[in-house]
Formats: sequence, structure tokens, C-alpha cells
Amino acid sequence: MKGLKDYVRTIPDFPQPGVMFRDVTAVVQDADGLKLAIDTMQDLVADLDYDVIAGAEARGFIFGTVIAYNTHKAFVLIRKKGKLPCETVEATYNLEYGTATIEMHKDAIKPGQRVLIVDDLVATGGTIKAMIDLVEKCGGVVAGILVLMELKGLNGREFLKGYRLDSAISYEGK
Amino acid sequence: MKGLKDYVRTIPDFPQPGVMFRDVTAVVQDADGLKLAIDTMQDLVADLDYDVIAGAEARGFIFGTVIAYNTHKAFVLIRKKGKLPCETVEATYNLEYGTATIEMHKDAIKPGQRVLIVDDLVATGGTIKAMIDLVEKCGGVVAGILVLMELKGLNGREFLKGYRLDSAISYEGK
Repeated sequence: MKGLKDYVRTIPDFPQPGVMFRDVTAVVQDADGLKLAIDTMQDLVADLDYDVIAGAEARGFIFGTVIAYNTHKAFVLIRKKGKLPCETVEATYNLEYGTATIEMHKDAIKPGQRVLIVDDLVATGGTIKAMIDLVEKCGGVVAGILVLMELKGLNGREFLKGYRLDSAISYEGK
Repeated sequence: MKGLKDYVRTIPDFPQPGVMFRDVTAVVQDADGLKLAIDTMQDLVADLDYDVIAGAEARGFIFGTVIAYNTHKAFVLIRKKGKLPCETVEATYNLEYGTATIEMHKDAIKPGQRVLIVDDLVATGGTIKAMIDLVEKCGGVVAGILVLMELKGLNGREFLKGYRLDSAISYEGK
């Protein structure tokens, strides 16, 4: 039987030289790969108590929504600045060159609600830290972080210390 | 019992004066709303024969992936230009000001495969027509188009004539 890593396609030197790009699209464009990814991620948090799932565009929507549907939870969209129509909270994080800002509707999470943050990948942890900030600005409690893939060489786990982090697969490199 | 339209939040004059913005985030950030949206959409295509679901970032990922998981189909990501790492096909469509280009991995759909295109919304139909172009450039057959919401005043159904189009809810206006 194929394991989850067998569905990941690795592209050397994308988007720039020296980076091993782990292509998640290859996992989900296979019916068995999609099912295995979701089921594996969901099992990792089977013991976790949470009310809401939050995911960031675009790839976070893929995994977060399915798990929200399966577990009958709400799904909160975190989007790039300027795309959400109502009042928002925002958080800014560093990119290799410059910064990026993400937003969430202010009324999407109620104070005290327990939130599971779902994304495809943890690398440096910068984007996920910004997602944590959004949840906490609304008074939500981060119950955990769940990702398909962890790139251990970028030390995201250390950066996110103090929060529970579950990853379905991990790679030693960057 | 609440109907699907009861979960949609309407914001007048967003993103510009005269537009009634139908906010899908309000549907999915309610556990019952998310379940009702997916179940309603899925029922509409219960009779349809298809192999693959394709969805465009970002909101198309929300609905497409859940239905792909539930029906054990592959999910193919259509993304904005420059985000996919392998060889792609591309299609350009008109926006109110200028144009936009979307891409799909060339190997994502095999010749003859039947594809269900899933998105949150059909307005003018321009984006969906570009998605159809991508599928057909790979030799795929568009089995149908499935959206949560149809804005009838923008005549997308007429623009997409010749293709089966199912929408869970529709509005008369723009």
C-alpha cells in the first residue's frame, strides 16, 4: 500500500535554486492520496477538543474545509488583505523579501472558542504565527495546529513553541 | 429549519457602489451552513458521471475538495499564474479592468476524463469559461459545472450555453 509520502512530488529548484519544492497538488489530484491525507490528518487530532477550524488561502482551504465538514465544525477563512467584505482583524508576517498581511472577519471567532488551525505546510512558521495572532486578537484559544507537511530544517516547530503542532509527514530538509 | 440562503450574508456596495456582495464566508463559518451547502451541491450532481473535480483558488477549493473527498474523486487545483511548479496549460479571461490568467498542471487531467468544475459562484461566467478552456486543452471532457450560487442578472448561464450548470441557490440581481 502506498504511504502518504509516495503521493508527494518533489521539484528541485522551485521557485528558486536550492529549494526542494514539495508539491501538494500531486497528493490531492489522486483520489486515494486525497483520502489518505485527510484521514491521516484527522486521526492526529481525534483526541483534540475544538469548536472551529481556521485555514488560510489558498491551500489551507483544501484540507481545513474537508475536516470541518467531516467533524461538523465551522470553517473560518483567513484571506489576503482586501478580500473579506466585513470588519476584520489583520496580522502581518515577514516574507523573504518584504511582508504580507492576512485578515479574518472579526465576528468569525467568538471569545473563548477553541480553534484548530489547519494548513498544508509548516516551514518557518511565519504564516501560522500570523494566523495564531488573528485567532487570539478575536479572543479565541488556539487548540492546536494541524498540517499535512512539516519541513524540519526551517525550525517552524521551535518558532511555534507553546502550541500543539501535529504534522502528517515531515522532511528533514528545507 | 434554516434554508441555504439564510446563511448567506449580503453586503451592499462591496467591493464597489451598486454591487450586492453575497458573502460565502458566512455560510461556511457555520457548521450547519457548511454541511447544508455541501450536501445540497452534492445532491444536484448525484446522477452525473465524472472522474475528477477541478476547482479554482481560492473559494473553489472550499467546495470542490469536500465533494471530491466524499465521492472519492481526484481534486485538480486551478491556480493563478506562477504558483504551480510543473508544466501547465493556461487561459486568460477578462476582468472589469484588464485580464487575469489561470493555470492547471498539464498532467492533472488525462485525455477523455470527465471533469466536474466546482466553484462558489457563477456571475458573468468568465472565470468558469477559462476553467473549461483549461480542461479542454488537456483533452478532458467537461461533464458539468456546479456552483453554490448563481447571479442570474449577469447572464453566466447564457454565456456557458452548451454545458450543464447546476447551482444550489440563485439570485435575480447582479
